[in-house]
Amino acid sequence: MTAVHRRSEQARQAILQAAFDICQQKGYAGLTIEGVASRAGVGKQTIYRWWSSKGTVVLDAFLDALGPTIDVPPAGDHLADLRRSLHSTADLLSHPRYGPMLADLVGALQHDEALAADFQQRVYEPIRRQTTERVERACAAGVIRHIDANLAADLLFGPLWFRALLMRQPPSTDYVDEVIDALLRGLAGSTPGAGGRE
Amino acid sequence: MTAVHRRSEQARQAILQAAFDICQQKGYAGLTIEGVASRAGVGKQTIYRWWSSKGTVVLDAFLDALGPTIDVPPAGDHLADLRRSLHSTADLLSHPRYGPMLADLVGALQHDEALAADFQQRVYEPIRRQTTERVERACAAGVIRHIDANLAADLLFGPLWFRALLMRQPPSTDYVDEVIDALLRGLAGSTPGAGGRE
Repeated sequence: MTAVHRRSEQARQAILQAAFDICQQKGYAGLTIEGVASRAGVGKQTIYRWWSSKGTVVLDAFLDALGPTIDVPPAGDHLADLRRSLHSTADLLSHPRYGPMLADLVGALQHDEALAADFQQRVYEPIRRQTTERVERACAAGVIRHIDANLAADLLFGPLWFRALLMRQPPSTDYVDEVIDALLRGLAGSTPGAGGRE
Repeated sequence: MTAVHRRSEQARQAILQAAFDICQQKGYAGLTIEGVASRAGVGKQTIYRWWSSKGTVVLDAFLDALGPTIDVPPAGDHLADLRRSLHSTADLLSHPRYGPMLADLVGALQHDEALAADFQQRVYEPIRRQTTERVERACAAGVIRHIDANLAADLLFGPLWFRALLMRQPPSTDYVDEVIDALLRGLAGSTPGAGGRE
């Protein structure tokens, strides 16, 4: 690594750290490129040279801080792999720093189309793809019945996000297990004929 | 109604309409009390006399515009009542004006504790209470099996909110029916022994 590269990398790290710290303190809404530049000790132009928008800096800061923990490699037991994916999401949502920042990012993207597109591409879709692949493998193995993999992914992950974003009670590992057990067993009662579609 | 009361009511309506319109155009983040006052043609003091914060005005504006549609009276068929509650939520999330505003409000409350508390008390908890009561009645009638009513509510509503907030694809009526049918039937496959807890 040349001296120029090293200085660039130092600046990049300082910018990401500054963006992460400001988001922790003031939330996404309170972060400005000016604030990041000031805290990182760089010019605004340095930031705009590498990132096109506030959202892309903050997502990089989030993913950089998070590291490889977002990826849960499969172990071969299909249902256990799905359970580990859910535990991993629950851990993330319950993490004292990453959880609120992730909720804040999801909140901010509701009225920030550039952030929404970036989040879809870099965070949501890779996790989604991993999940639907695991659902398909579990279906093929007969561990869960044949079901649309996207619907199954919604059923598995929806309750966790609902807890975190609407109830603001990050899901625990025990809660994940309750969700999975309830989903496997189904909700049908002893009088299944009642209450059909209208 | 006296002339003073009538003027008060006119000012109140103008403020709520202004808050609603600004939220539609600029989102919650872009709304200021100054902006609402200016658009409604009132002084800031008039707003602060009736509302303690930006969040309370916006929630009032949202609920006032929404009217009584948030409430779905029960018809007696327990599963159909639950299905109608879910359809109602899906309709709300898919509505061209209310859906994005609701998503924006849920987004904003991730870093706005006053708004979060208000939203919990005035929007979330009444719907939650209605849902858990319906789940309990459906359990008692044997239409759905015995299950913790809060867990069942998460399983039912979680996927809808997940679609709206994470995937940004507001749920359709057909999607609601797919969720309910999948939940009733359960996900268990033909080899239920596989993939237990770790």
